[in-house]
Amino acid sequence: MVKVITLLGLGAMGKALAQRYIDTGYATTVWNRTPGKADALLEKGAKLATTVSESLSAADLVIVCLLDNASVRETLSKAPTSSLRGKTIVNLTNGTPSQARELSEWITSSGAAGYIHGGIMAIPVMIGSPHAVLLCSGNNAAAFAAVEADLAHLGTAKFLGTDPGSASLHDLALLSGMYGLFAGFFQATALATSQPGNTATGFLSLLVPWLTAMTQSLAALAEQIDSGDYTTRGSNLAMQVAAIPNMIAASEEQGVSPRLVEPIFELMKRAVEGGYGGADISAVIEYTKDASNSHK
Amino acid sequence: MVKVITLLGLGAMGKALAQRYIDTGYATTVWNRTPGKADALLEKGAKLATTVSESLSAADLVIVCLLDNASVRETLSKAPTSSLRGKTIVNLTNGTPSQARELSEWITSSGAAGYIHGGIMAIPVMIGSPHAVLLCSGNNAAAFAAVEADLAHLGTAKFLGTDPGSASLHDLALLSGMYGLFAGFFQATALATSQPGNTATGFLSLLVPWLTAMTQSLAALAEQIDSGDYTTRGSNLAMQVAAIPNMIAASEEQGVSPRLVEPIFELMKRAVEGGYGGADISAVIEYTKDASNSHK
Repeated sequence: MVKVITLLGLGAMGKALAQRYIDTGYATTVWNRTPGKADALLEKGAKLATTVSESLSAADLVIVCLLDNASVRETLSKAPTSSLRGKTIVNLTNGTPSQARELSEWITSSGAAGYIHGGIMAIPVMIGSPHAVLLCSGNNAAAFAAVEADLAHLGTAKFLGTDPGSASLHDLALLSGMYGLFAGFFQATALATSQPGNTATGFLSLLVPWLTAMTQSLAALAEQIDSGDYTTRGSNLAMQVAAIPNMIAASEEQGVSPRLVEPIFELMKRAVEGGYGGADISAVIEYTKDASNSHK
Repeated sequence: MVKVITLLGLGAMGKALAQRYIDTGYATTVWNRTPGKADALLEKGAKLATTVSESLSAADLVIVCLLDNASVRETLSKAPTSSLRGKTIVNLTNGTPSQARELSEWITSSGAAGYIHGGIMAIPVMIGSPHAVLLCSGNNAAAFAAVEADLAHLGTAKFLGTDPGSASLHDLALLSGMYGLFAGFFQATALATSQPGNTATGFLSLLVPWLTAMTQSLAALAEQIDSGDYTTRGSNLAMQVAAIPNMIAASEEQGVSPRLVEPIFELMKRAVEGGYGGADISAVIEYTKDASNSHK
């Protein structure tokens, strides 16, 4: 039996998803607001749906990958609600947990067999590799189980529970972690390359092993966070805070802005003021959780 | 021939350094402003110098590990300048590149055989392991070569050139990178654990492989930074900026402050406004270098 799939949205990621299903032998129907984007896929055997309604009727498994969740709702609303009946919708569009929960409610109440919200932790060229991770969640775990093998063609699919917002939450959390890492990379690289003769690639021979070791050290911090016992095993927060003026001064001497790492310095100082000077840096979590810190 | 060494400063790190030299069979003389800190080391065979002058005369290799570089100058000034003559001073005190350059000038002009400024990229328990990295620089490369084997007992010693400030610069750059990584960790963990039932340690099974993969991806960004060609191989900056409101909104919905990652978001937006929307995130380096961004 030929497996069939429908894919809505042909941005860079949507195209990579469609291509992967064609390569894996699926009968693949595609739809995009701008039909021209499908041309290369049609040459490879995809079928073009000219309306959303037509695309939905072509397969029981519908994968959606659009710019945002407002576009998802707008697009699915182009077809009669009845056309969602019996379908499993896998929405891989980036958005917030609450958007995922709202879409889940609307789509399942329209008679869909299941709504799975996913987050793709990969760039398009990685699709099909086990290194591409597909975070999934949905209020019907059986609906995920039913399409898990289909999703596994895209990468490593992980089910994160029945809160439909869970995949988006984890997706955004991982992205936040990545942007912190990148902020540190830019700050470190700007400082290192402010010295004549230094290159960003040369500096990596120090930076990558260091960041790799520090990533391993996160396990100890995570245990402290879970237990709420921030007893230090290394240098305490007060000692770490003592080095902050050096980092700020060195940045300014070298013509580099310290702003990328300033917020964590602020939270470290606040944690010391709050009585955590003898504790490990894990105590900073107490301050990240405080929404009242949100705006300057 | 018994190797001899003097160590000034017995904080947590200084103690670990002295202990390591005692364990390796060095005749070890220690000095500390508060002599009581030496007790455990004296039991293990260290000799206590009661004055800085006495400590300097005890060995040709003098390792200094104090709270800050002002303390280094103050401490060495307690002895007559002549007592520095012929000595090699290895200063492992955290500070700025310009402080290291000033100390280098003062100490070498006092007739010292060499001044090496170092940065220890390790916590005390790591001393003696190859994973403890000792960044070193000094205006006399031969002086480093002469003591390299002695320093190698502490960890992996790396010479970063004849600018005496180079080790401090790289030390602070690596620390900045680490604090960026930690900022991302706290932001990601605060978001993930805002969902009932999630733990920081549980979240690591997603976060650590992700950060490890992203650390590997820094090589591509570093090449782009060195070449000045920010052509994207993944998702471009405009697309990444489009996801920022989701990260901010999700944080606020979950009661987590987005402030730890806000500065990189600001620089990403500025890079898009500056015409880098089609480029890779490496283009952000153009904005980190601008000292005028330094203060809000």
